[in-house]
Amino acid sequence: MRQIKIGLIGFGTIGSAVYNGLKKNGSILSSNLGAKVVLKSLCDKDRSVFKRHKINKKLIKNNAYEIINDPSIDIIIELIGGIKPAKDFIIQSLKNKKYVITANKALLSDDKKEIFKVARDNGVAVFFEASVLAGVPVIKVLCESLIANSIKSIKGIINGTSNYILSSMHEKGISFKAALKEAQDKGYAERNYSLDVDGHDSAHKLAILSSLAFSCDIKPKDIYVEGISNISNHDVMFAKELGYCIKLLAVARSYKDSVEVRVQPVLLPKKHMLSNVNEAYNAVYFKADLAQDIFLYGQGAGGSSTCSGVLSDVAEAVDCILAKSPLNAHQADVFSGPKKKIRQVSEVESSYYVRFMAVDAPGVLAKISGILAKHKVSISSVMQKARNRVKAVPIIMLTHQVKDVDLNKAIKEIGRQKIIMSRSVVIKMEKEG
Amino acid sequence: MRQIKIGLIGFGTIGSAVYNGLKKNGSILSSNLGAKVVLKSLCDKDRSVFKRHKINKKLIKNNAYEIINDPSIDIIIELIGGIKPAKDFIIQSLKNKKYVITANKALLSDDKKEIFKVARDNGVAVFFEASVLAGVPVIKVLCESLIANSIKSIKGIINGTSNYILSSMHEKGISFKAALKEAQDKGYAERNYSLDVDGHDSAHKLAILSSLAFSCDIKPKDIYVEGISNISNHDVMFAKELGYCIKLLAVARSYKDSVEVRVQPVLLPKKHMLSNVNEAYNAVYFKADLAQDIFLYGQGAGGSSTCSGVLSDVAEAVDCILAKSPLNAHQADVFSGPKKKIRQVSEVESSYYVRFMAVDAPGVLAKISGILAKHKVSISSVMQKARNRVKAVPIIMLTHQVKDVDLNKAIKEIGRQKIIMSRSVVIKMEKEG
Repeated sequence: MRQIKIGLIGFGTIGSAVYNGLKKNGSILSSNLGAKVVLKSLCDKDRSVFKRHKINKKLIKNNAYEIINDPSIDIIIELIGGIKPAKDFIIQSLKNKKYVITANKALLSDDKKEIFKVARDNGVAVFFEASVLAGVPVIKVLCESLIANSIKSIKGIINGTSNYILSSMHEKGISFKAALKEAQDKGYAERNYSLDVDGHDSAHKLAILSSLAFSCDIKPKDIYVEGISNISNHDVMFAKELGYCIKLLAVARSYKDSVEVRVQPVLLPKKHMLSNVNEAYNAVYFKADLAQDIFLYGQGAGGSSTCSGVLSDVAEAVDCILAKSPLNAHQADVFSGPKKKIRQVSEVESSYYVRFMAVDAPGVLAKISGILAKHKVSISSVMQKARNRVKAVPIIMLTHQVKDVDLNKAIKEIGRQKIIMSRSVVIKMEKEG
Repeated sequence: MRQIKIGLIGFGTIGSAVYNGLKKNGSILSSNLGAKVVLKSLCDKDRSVFKRHKINKKLIKNNAYEIINDPSIDIIIELIGGIKPAKDFIIQSLKNKKYVITANKALLSDDKKEIFKVARDNGVAVFFEASVLAGVPVIKVLCESLIANSIKSIKGIINGTSNYILSSMHEKGISFKAALKEAQDKGYAERNYSLDVDGHDSAHKLAILSSLAFSCDIKPKDIYVEGISNISNHDVMFAKELGYCIKLLAVARSYKDSVEVRVQPVLLPKKHMLSNVNEAYNAVYFKADLAQDIFLYGQGAGGSSTCSGVLSDVAEAVDCILAKSPLNAHQADVFSGPKKKIRQVSEVESSYYVRFMAVDAPGVLAKISGILAKHKVSISSVMQKARNRVKAVPIIMLTHQVKDVDLNKAIKEIGRQKIIMSRSVVIKMEKEG
């Protein structure tokens, strides 16, 4: 049985999980592949981690280039994350004609076009299943199962931390702060949680998914991003009462000559599959012209799931090595498609959830409705809540499809009225499809 | 750009959908693959279908062997279904060193071991994504994404007709017969619906999935099968009241030295992802040691979705042809693993939903509970319903984990009591994991 040798760069949570997974299930992988997968070398700038995991000293190298420049190694797994020095490691590995596996979403979301060109120029390939949703195979499904489809839209809950927070707020009625504290206590949120709750982690992943789906190079900076830290538990509970969940959704939709790419909190009907994605689970919903609906769900993060994704990439790389050909070579070209126009969020018509805090006096509803009507904003339902011991009462309205610019004008004019006690809340309602 | 030539055998609903899909999206497929995919020939024993679809006469062949024996054809797509003559067509195509794509679950569920051996002996491969859940990529995910995992269990709603019926009963409280009529009117149930509602269609698919998951050759006859035609709308509504759905579930679970494979109606908690699979949608839930939970959902049937699955297989075959190597050659061996002991349903402990129809008299509950206790069946909850104008009242009980044999003895003894007015109903409650 042929031996395929692997070098592993980075031995943090993910790196050590891949090491352990390979130790546990390496024989399953090898027997399924018809080739023996052997971990030959590993390295990490923090050498104390090796003692903790009782790693055989023979495997440990002093620096990454000892691995990258070892001619006997066939596959490099990069798991250090970040741009520097990960990008240099990957580029040099490809130039050394090694297949590369990475889970580095930050790097790929920006530099994918350049990296895939180097891979193609050197007759090898980069695999990156674990860069989006870890072991949940969104990349494989999109690139291989949907290969003959025109992708209409992608909708995903692709950040576990913010989903845990919003789920807790929905289930227990607690505030964002309390839910964040809970997520931190349970290990679902890091101390530095901002990349998660402000939507930028989702944007990194959406940049990769949407670029693959629409064969172009969409970068995080092209994506409209809005986080969840301003979502109030009152709105979560009002939405719930109306039959909706508030979820941080990553959305990419294709139009004739443009694409829409955004990450923002939205209202989803309770019956939608994505509304049933709770706690730290992740999911992606594809709409495609032939396959129609394809929904994928799973952990989407953590060492074990990421290990599964990385090892599925090892299998792909081994297939290529055995076939002496970088299969799915088309991947190299996918990001080189013609640049797509990015449609601004304000150009897209939508329905909205709107909450006004108004004085509890006669004529208030008439006043608000009048201003909305003037700006062509029509209302599909209204809920007025009586509150004890406060002067302001919440008035919740769901609008029909409306132009962003019209709604904004209306909200501004209403905000100037004396009857309005505090800033109005506007949350997009996600439409079907 | 290299041309890859395809021959299509069978031009019914699926065959014509593949033809149309290739016509519509062939250029997407070709550009993603870096090879031009060309439909060279097709045939069907019913020649009238070609007129209906205005097929170019040059494409039409008089019989399948004109296609199978054409040396210029690289890939054969078999879409006639059934055992004869599909099996002969596939075997001869493989012997002619052609890659074969099939959606034929009935054939594969029984004869997979033989067919894959012929493929391997001839240095080619058989692809069969669309044989289970059409374009929902359960085969690819199981064989490729989970390649380094040990699969613990598979749970699936893998028959759209029965799921449509049970969903309607759940939503509207209507009877099995009324829901079946509705499914027929909407085109979700064929006139000959028995293969669907009696669970045998699910068993065919489960035979394929469980064989792949556990690397052995499980046949439909190894699978315990129970259909849904005896499910009463009363039980569906009582289950709903208790927070459950009744679903026709296909389950495969692996033990140390045996496997459990069964298709039967079960109670699922409303919060389970599979409980949210409604109408004619299909879904599969994998539990694996590294990836943990992977849930896939989609149409799982119909021409368009099947076409997507078939064309993803075309892509795999083209990759093999370009690489001059049957990749995933390991597939050939997967069904040749050591035979697994099949665990009998009666050996597996479970909780149950039980409904007794008893006279409305004092002491009835004591009598029933007493007999259950005598047989070591302990009860987790009881619901007694008062009924108008009938003497019999339903008594619903949910049991704790109990041995099948103990429960059966208790049910028999209770059935012999004079207080019992009609046959008791027993439905398994599906446990987590």
